[in-house]
Amino acid sequence: MTKTIEVRNPRTGKFDYVIIPPPPRLVVQQCKRTRRAQVRWQQLGLEGRIEALQQWKQAISSGRDRLTEALVNDTGRLSTSVLEIDSFLSSIDRWCRLAPELLQESAKNTAIPFIALQQTSVPYPLVGVISPWNFPLLLSTIDTIPALLAGCAVIVKPSEIAPRFVAPLKTALNAVPELRDVLTFVEGAGETGSVLIENVDLVCFTGSVATGRKVAQAAAKQFIPAFLELGGKDPAIVLESANLELATSAILWGSVVNTGQSCLSIERIYVADSIFEKFYHQLVTKAHRLQLAYPTVESGEIGPIIAEKQAAIISDHLLDAVEKGAVIHCGGVIEDLGGGWWCRPTVLTQVNHSMKVMTEETFGPIMPVMPFSTVEEAISLANDSIYGLSAAVFASESEALEIAQQIDAGGISINDAGLTAMMQEGEKNAFKFSGLGGSRMGAAALKRFMRKKAILIKTNATNDPWWFNNEV
Amino acid sequence: MTKTIEVRNPRTGKFDYVIIPPPPRLVVQQCKRTRRAQVRWQQLGLEGRIEALQQWKQAISSGRDRLTEALVNDTGRLSTSVLEIDSFLSSIDRWCRLAPELLQESAKNTAIPFIALQQTSVPYPLVGVISPWNFPLLLSTIDTIPALLAGCAVIVKPSEIAPRFVAPLKTALNAVPELRDVLTFVEGAGETGSVLIENVDLVCFTGSVATGRKVAQAAAKQFIPAFLELGGKDPAIVLESANLELATSAILWGSVVNTGQSCLSIERIYVADSIFEKFYHQLVTKAHRLQLAYPTVESGEIGPIIAEKQAAIISDHLLDAVEKGAVIHCGGVIEDLGGGWWCRPTVLTQVNHSMKVMTEETFGPIMPVMPFSTVEEAISLANDSIYGLSAAVFASESEALEIAQQIDAGGISINDAGLTAMMQEGEKNAFKFSGLGGSRMGAAALKRFMRKKAILIKTNATNDPWWFNNEV
Repeated sequence: MTKTIEVRNPRTGKFDYVIIPPPPRLVVQQCKRTRRAQVRWQQLGLEGRIEALQQWKQAISSGRDRLTEALVNDTGRLSTSVLEIDSFLSSIDRWCRLAPELLQESAKNTAIPFIALQQTSVPYPLVGVISPWNFPLLLSTIDTIPALLAGCAVIVKPSEIAPRFVAPLKTALNAVPELRDVLTFVEGAGETGSVLIENVDLVCFTGSVATGRKVAQAAAKQFIPAFLELGGKDPAIVLESANLELATSAILWGSVVNTGQSCLSIERIYVADSIFEKFYHQLVTKAHRLQLAYPTVESGEIGPIIAEKQAAIISDHLLDAVEKGAVIHCGGVIEDLGGGWWCRPTVLTQVNHSMKVMTEETFGPIMPVMPFSTVEEAISLANDSIYGLSAAVFASESEALEIAQQIDAGGISINDAGLTAMMQEGEKNAFKFSGLGGSRMGAAALKRFMRKKAILIKTNATNDPWWFNNEV
Repeated sequence: MTKTIEVRNPRTGKFDYVIIPPPPRLVVQQCKRTRRAQVRWQQLGLEGRIEALQQWKQAISSGRDRLTEALVNDTGRLSTSVLEIDSFLSSIDRWCRLAPELLQESAKNTAIPFIALQQTSVPYPLVGVISPWNFPLLLSTIDTIPALLAGCAVIVKPSEIAPRFVAPLKTALNAVPELRDVLTFVEGAGETGSVLIENVDLVCFTGSVATGRKVAQAAAKQFIPAFLELGGKDPAIVLESANLELATSAILWGSVVNTGQSCLSIERIYVADSIFEKFYHQLVTKAHRLQLAYPTVESGEIGPIIAEKQAAIISDHLLDAVEKGAVIHCGGVIEDLGGGWWCRPTVLTQVNHSMKVMTEETFGPIMPVMPFSTVEEAISLANDSIYGLSAAVFASESEALEIAQQIDAGGISINDAGLTAMMQEGEKNAFKFSGLGGSRMGAAALKRFMRKKAILIKTNATNDPWWFNNEV
């Protein structure tokens, strides 16, 4: 466990960074120390916590160049990293703006005139966040910011595949002593995560179904809540009534954004057979316009595949599909350029649900397109999945809404793709194996970090308990 | 598994009832059938579901005598059974009244003018309820009624120790075909419960910590939510400023109600040393006034111990306390009367936290009283527990409120005991090993049976997806 972990650079393939996971007893100590510090953080009150987060934001903004550089080295891409930092910084502002209303407490009367109810909320003292490599900054902070505002202390274990962004965040934390004590980062892989779960009061995990199951079971053993956001195999359904130009543009972006390395990316496309040919021709034409972000980070739109193991999975899904009769219209191979792994936007037809590319999470810029003849068939294909994260429907609004109601997924975009990833207002739960626990968006995203406490007060002055007249 | 289970009568000690657990494949079949029936139940709409529940209520009321008889045979007590039936029937009315507002759905605009949000909720299709023997009717229906109104189908597995009440409920169900298909009961013990968890979409469990942990881990494996209400070791704190008459009456009732067989009963009492002697003398005097409900169910207040194994636990806790120096002022022995096990209200002093009676759940009419010298000490003793279900504080209101804020428990009664068991308005979560998952009271009690779905609609007519101008 004190072995170092070498970290690969996704553009060069070189192992040019090292992390040293702390031994378990140090993780335990850090949990204890951070939990102790939480008491003061909670006492600081919401205003004080907002101020501390804003100071951190200032410090990050000042050192933004270093953060960008680290994130580019973690992920091999520039524009998405810039966007990640923008989104992260604006999420701090958004939560600071929303928190005061969300954390308001209420006193009210009950049905019994002389019994008053005071409803309060108590933060879970210590939250553990275990985050993945695909959006290293965003997904390590999406749960962290609302948890901190709720009054929790947080320990983050980022993915060992993309951990470089942590150092600049830590540097910025040094400018904010109140926050530094209650927001800490611990580097490591699965073993470190396991120790963390055993020593926190709530765990947030974003990652695979297989690891998610382990996390959920370890949390169950401790009786702590586990909020899991796992894989997805998001379907898009395109009806004859759809705006075809819009549908192909949105689906292309929804599939290839971040090289498909997004849980909320479109991974399978069902198109009404009357427009099937036209649809995929247009999709292929548009796909050809996108270029690899190679040789420099400033060029093109499609970054490298971040995790080496993911390149093997994408390749396996493509081979499996072709073996079973799929036709590739563009892209379709994993290319080795300058030591990194790359994949151009890939459109496939002649696909079916016997193929991995239609049923397992591919996590690449892969667009398998399959025709359907009836709406019922489309819905049934969309729901034929172990996943239920999100989906997209392209059709006249009324038709689309009716379909959306029947899709077993938490977030549905209508006449666009991935809206549910971008808009923070909608509350949504993951369906099926896509996750478990409170919504990460909407008001619930903050409230799920607090336990509710009901204080019931007998306010009349008699010697009799209420029970005496309401015999039990 | 096709072995029959003989059920003991708590008043006579005789095994006078038999249940036959179905083989696992029949449980699986029943889950499938019930899940299929849920589709129509959901389509029925809330009004239809309310009507069906009201019809069931009517049918139960008509056959109320048989239900009372069954429940008296299950638990050996009359007045609490009558109250259980009253509470159950009125909970149907209460939920039917509240559900329309709680299930209202909303459409709203987002921060982006041309993106609309439709927020809907989808019931978990099939809910499993595994309930205990102490309040057989109430605790098998407390989760069931809101789940049914939310649109879920429900399969209940009541405790094999008190299963007689199910037959009259089933008879009443025959009058309501829509409900009969989506509310079913399955008889059996732990094995049957395990099969149930593997075949439902959400599980509610009320029972012990040990079994609760198994339930949570089995649920985690399936990625289904587990709502657990487990044990408690509720403390009462009495300050010098308390109304002593009120405190002794409320604590006595809060401890001995249902012979202490309640998760929310007071199990340990901390009293300011200045009033300690006076307090326990008064408590003993009042305890002496209570009589056993023997020889007939109409006599006295204290019913028999329902579960034979519990009699052994109570006895063990008392012996352990006396061995370690505790003094018994009244009660203190398990008596065998007519084949049943009985225990009179028992007051102990000279107790400390080395004794089981102060740290483990006793589940009997046992009142260990311990003095404290400072408020800080009282709070620290109250929080020195693996449990965090509820608590009671007796003091001037301002003092009591300040203490209540510092107690790690979900429900706190002030100047009364067990208010949090009786008042349905307060939302509360179980702390520590006392449970996991959404609140069983307040609006959350119904909402936790639904997943949130966010439908985001791009409403302007351009060909460009929103992302094009908000580059990712």
